[in-house]
Amino acid sequence: MKANDLQPQPGWTLARRAERMNPSVIREILKVTERPGIISFAGGLPSPLTFPVEAFRAACEQVLSEDGRGALQYAASEGYGPLREAVAALLPWNVDPAQVLITTGSQQGLDLVAKVLVDHGSRVLVETPTYLGALQAFAPMEPEVTGVASDAEGVDLADLARRRAGARFLYVLSNFQNPTGRTMSEARRQALVQTARELALPLVEDNPYGELWFDAPPPPPLAARYPEGTIYLGSFSKVLSPGLRLGYMVAPPEILPKLLQAKQAADLHSPSFNQRLVAEVLRDGFLERHVPTIRALYKAQRDAMLEALAREMRGLDVQWNAPDGGMFLWARLPAGMDAVQVLPHAVERGVAFVPGSPFYADAADARTLRLSFVTATREQIDAGIAALAATLRDLATR
Amino acid sequence: MKANDLQPQPGWTLARRAERMNPSVIREILKVTERPGIISFAGGLPSPLTFPVEAFRAACEQVLSEDGRGALQYAASEGYGPLREAVAALLPWNVDPAQVLITTGSQQGLDLVAKVLVDHGSRVLVETPTYLGALQAFAPMEPEVTGVASDAEGVDLADLARRRAGARFLYVLSNFQNPTGRTMSEARRQALVQTARELALPLVEDNPYGELWFDAPPPPPLAARYPEGTIYLGSFSKVLSPGLRLGYMVAPPEILPKLLQAKQAADLHSPSFNQRLVAEVLRDGFLERHVPTIRALYKAQRDAMLEALAREMRGLDVQWNAPDGGMFLWARLPAGMDAVQVLPHAVERGVAFVPGSPFYADAADARTLRLSFVTATREQIDAGIAALAATLRDLATR
Repeated sequence: MKANDLQPQPGWTLARRAERMNPSVIREILKVTERPGIISFAGGLPSPLTFPVEAFRAACEQVLSEDGRGALQYAASEGYGPLREAVAALLPWNVDPAQVLITTGSQQGLDLVAKVLVDHGSRVLVETPTYLGALQAFAPMEPEVTGVASDAEGVDLADLARRRAGARFLYVLSNFQNPTGRTMSEARRQALVQTARELALPLVEDNPYGELWFDAPPPPPLAARYPEGTIYLGSFSKVLSPGLRLGYMVAPPEILPKLLQAKQAADLHSPSFNQRLVAEVLRDGFLERHVPTIRALYKAQRDAMLEALAREMRGLDVQWNAPDGGMFLWARLPAGMDAVQVLPHAVERGVAFVPGSPFYADAADARTLRLSFVTATREQIDAGIAALAATLRDLATR
Repeated sequence: MKANDLQPQPGWTLARRAERMNPSVIREILKVTERPGIISFAGGLPSPLTFPVEAFRAACEQVLSEDGRGALQYAASEGYGPLREAVAALLPWNVDPAQVLITTGSQQGLDLVAKVLVDHGSRVLVETPTYLGALQAFAPMEPEVTGVASDAEGVDLADLARRRAGARFLYVLSNFQNPTGRTMSEARRQALVQTARELALPLVEDNPYGELWFDAPPPPPLAARYPEGTIYLGSFSKVLSPGLRLGYMVAPPEILPKLLQAKQAADLHSPSFNQRLVAEVLRDGFLERHVPTIRALYKAQRDAMLEALAREMRGLDVQWNAPDGGMFLWARLPAGMDAVQVLPHAVERGVAFVPGSPFYADAADARTLRLSFVTATREQIDAGIAALAATLRDLATR
């Protein structure tokens, strides 16, 4: 008998909300894809080829030489003044830097929104499907999340009106949505804002991918049209680097102080060194030179995947869309197939994707899947899509 | 009439918890201290003289040259492997790196603890007084926070036993506590751990200041004695830089997965670039050379403040302690004085401090105040303590 057996065990009692915190479904799914040699379309990572390493090296040197001690010290919870000003200047509507709150990635923005706006049982409306990370960020505040019917242009406004009662907000990704890659049309944006105004419904607009357009910029954001009713989330993760964990939110003056207080309680402030690095990199219009290189790369990658799909899926009842920007493409398998069940067979043939089901707040379309086109090479795209097609042919003939 | 008047206003509904999110009392208090020329003992900032700017410059160069793209990419929520190993190796008990979770400052550790362990109305026990930032981090989860009577050696164990019923955990800063500067004695640690085991009471041990000892290291942490019942929080903010926002937690295997899931939902991961920088700086025993320089500086600063207090407060019924490390000293004004009311008079004479009241979970001792001795120069300490004494003399004779 060990001494320990004589003692009561420590009485850990978990919060009720901890029951809703479960390992990311995707994370579990992706474990099977981690074998060496797998061609992965499953990741949500930007291409590391787009990271401006040299610009960051120069910025480190500049920031540490100019005021190294200041950059390494505690700082204001709102964020670094010049970065807040740079964010306000980047946005395509009239934003006062005082409305900008710098966050530890836009994921933190979702956590703060939930803390400030969601009670246990509060209704939260989301698109069908929606960003899985948002569902995870909202979950600890125990909302009742309801999917609003959506088509290729965005949310269905009749369904929105039916589900609005008591909803705290509608969460929406207007541009090159994760997971579907779809973009809300100009007409739908106008109609959505009109409906939101009529219903007095707040919006949370998440726009990490908006700059990654291929041929033409998307229509102006919802926040530009309905600023008093929208919390807008942005990010530097897809245009500069996700590893710095810097995002931002723009909120109406009546909500911002509470978000700021939640931010202060959550991590005091986002890293001051990183904020100064990004402010330094942004100077002199760097994004205007840099982002076009990302657009060109991702467009070529998308085209490669569309060509491979058209070539390899011939004769199979597989559907896919052709996103106008972003990182993801959305596909639908033949009737009767379930993407979760198909995945291990695909992995056996050396290719991985993310099944669509975890992205649905309620009833999932089990035939759907997400394909990232940005990190694989052209050769890998060709081989990976061929392997996926072979998997489907094989399963179809069983 | 503007068009806007025809529209209903957006129906923002705040979460119940948002009522508890209020501007930091300290922040409001400190607004009066922001006049130029004020000598401030009010801040909670480490001395920027201690930040190893050159080491970080070299680390930036190394990290960006070696694997810049990796450092700027998304990373695992648990943290960067070599940094988790370095943390485990730094700690004075047997810690498996798999038990280490890297956080965005140790403030985030407090947020995660509350999310995983606190329900609305859950009892949480804290020292009297305790760290204000912890009260703010716990508040959004709506606990009922109860102060346990405490003396110069730490918490009163009889009072702890009386208040334990239903408590989710006791939050304790064992070394050079913020705000009091006090350290829990070896005898009290042994007795506290024995009592916690008997009561099956989990502990949350917060140790940001433990390395900043002046003459001898403090006794081993509670987590080293009761690892199965303790969540331990540490930080790089006081030994390297707070501006990088890096802390860590060590948790028992039964709690860590939930903390990790809460972490992932909160900000995906702490900045990978910063984690690699710190891992690089820590190599070759850097802290063993660097931290002694901080200790020597802060000890000289503490001595200067103790000398100034002894000299200037003569004849006044003011009490203060002599901390064995850390950044803060705790003082108590003459009977009948209230530190909140004294502050504006002190500011008029050019010196600022933080009143003690906000650090109490329940009944506050209004006579107490916190003095930081680390950021003012020796001359400022002399002049500032003289100004504080003059303020008290002036008020005493009114």
